[in-house]
Amino acid sequence: MATDPLSTTFAALADPTRRAILARLREGPTTVTELSAPFTMSGPAISKHLRVLERAGLITRGREAQWRPCTLTAGPLKDAVEWLESYRRFWEESFDRMADYLTEIQTKGDSQ
Amino acid sequence: MATDPLSTTFAALADPTRRAILARLREGPTTVTELSAPFTMSGPAISKHLRVLERAGLITRGREAQWRPCTLTAGPLKDAVEWLESYRRFWEESFDRMADYLTEIQTKGDSQ
Repeated sequence: MATDPLSTTFAALADPTRRAILARLREGPTTVTELSAPFTMSGPAISKHLRVLERAGLITRGREAQWRPCTLTAGPLKDAVEWLESYRRFWEESFDRMADYLTEIQTKGDSQ
Repeated sequence: MATDPLSTTFAALADPTRRAILARLREGPTTVTELSAPFTMSGPAISKHLRVLERAGLITRGREAQWRPCTLTAGPLKDAVEWLESYRRFWEESFDRMADYLTEIQTKGDSQ
């Protein structure tokens, strides 16, 4: 069971429906009904996804009984990016190696 | 069950032991025995975490029978950062709002 904040964030992001909900919320706060519209799943299934996002601190929900808009809260995403950034040199190095290799095979091709 | 690559990556990262293994691999390829040393968990438990990382394409394992070094492969981390970067303006905006608020209360304090 994941309990540290970073594990909770990554677990919340490990689902395409939850990522689609966050993508929708980039356009602004919205109701659960509007959020559910593009999905073919049941209301309770969407509500479960929203609870996961809320527990991870990725959304907040208004407290008005009639209109409880969901709003994106991006703080945990910042922490996730900061963790990932410490690996940047590894993917840049592998990209550089690929570029070197392509240059090498092109040079060989030109000299033949 | 997560099947798309981004979900698989985030699910693999949603565990502190797996993130610690990746952090160790930033120092260079290493054997499973060396990787297991800092952890109090059993060999099979570590092997299970390594299989999750391998399936997510975050590590590769050498094929030599005696020495099967694990190596970090950072490509999926790059894809994860690219997804997260599309939310950057949201955490920067909330940071700006906090900075504005702090300036405001400091200005009020000075004028009293």
